[in-house]
Amino acid sequence: MDDETINFITSFIPLTEEDIRFIKSQNQIETYKKDTILLAEGEYSKLTFFILKGCIRSYYLIEGEEKTTEFYTEKQGIVTMSYVKNQPSEYYLSCLEDCVVSVSTVERTQKLIAKVPKLETLIIQMNGELLVQNRASLDDFKNLNPEMRYVKLLKTRPDLLQRVSQFYLASYLGITPESLSRIRKRISSK
Amino acid sequence: MDDETINFITSFIPLTEEDIRFIKSQNQIETYKKDTILLAEGEYSKLTFFILKGCIRSYYLIEGEEKTTEFYTEKQGIVTMSYVKNQPSEYYLSCLEDCVVSVSTVERTQKLIAKVPKLETLIIQMNGELLVQNRASLDDFKNLNPEMRYVKLLKTRPDLLQRVSQFYLASYLGITPESLSRIRKRISSK
Repeated sequence: MDDETINFITSFIPLTEEDIRFIKSQNQIETYKKDTILLAEGEYSKLTFFILKGCIRSYYLIEGEEKTTEFYTEKQGIVTMSYVKNQPSEYYLSCLEDCVVSVSTVERTQKLIAKVPKLETLIIQMNGELLVQNRASLDDFKNLNPEMRYVKLLKTRPDLLQRVSQFYLASYLGITPESLSRIRKRISSK
Repeated sequence: MDDETINFITSFIPLTEEDIRFIKSQNQIETYKKDTILLAEGEYSKLTFFILKGCIRSYYLIEGEEKTTEFYTEKQGIVTMSYVKNQPSEYYLSCLEDCVVSVSTVERTQKLIAKVPKLETLIIQMNGELLVQNRASLDDFKNLNPEMRYVKLLKTRPDLLQRVSQFYLASYLGITPESLSRIRKRISSK
């Protein structure tokens, strides 16, 4: 785990040098090439992911069409339905870029918590943040029209507009690429 | 806290008699009359809620119109953005029915965890479930058309259709009451 991520963790909870050494020693870092499928529909996942570098896209395959539902980037965690409920996944996780990911299992997380109990507090805090962010995304999707959704994305995650194709972005916003193109023209002419 | 709720907790984690006595002694149960506003837009909340009986509706007030985003019922927890991020709430929480609610603060939760550390594991598990359920709701809202959303609601939360007015249900599904009425007619004639 890189120092930046350790700094990120210590911004939530104080860690001793020993804690940091143990976390680093236990941490499993994986690198994945662009387009690697981390989870496919129908598969069971026993892993949680925390992205150190790169971008992971989640999508459903519905009547042959990919419906993009999320982009996960640096310092975001992914907790799947399959992991929590022990059931086959309904969606895919795929690397949009080359990725560096901290990967964990229930067992490894329990081992870390046994040695560094403060991590449990961190997990509660991070899951709490994820929870309310997901909730806010759902509320926004219900309450905002496509143009308002795009404007909000511009403000909250401007990096996505640089690193994600218009095609995936449109799907994520629930509109056609043509509609997205029209929205972008309208906004840039304002 | 009633025995049913204790049974619910022990289905996640084993509790000793002493644990149960302590949890019951610390537990703050509130009863609220129908139409009580538990949280208003602009207010700060330092509370989390766990519903023992009743139904709580969350909604945004947008240009004078209430946009219903969720119905919380028995054995569901509510963790608000305001609580997690310590910021003014963007939405309302209101009792759709007379409610009995277990209410907690950060301090009370920490005190409970200090005495019964296993509760931290329960919180992680419950937040994990809430997290993936929220995610699934968002994905469904993106991927399904209004009729499919209604059919899914029929399957997953049939009780809501009995206890919530058509007006609120339509808002929750992101459609007009007239559209909901048409969908119901179409389905009942199948």
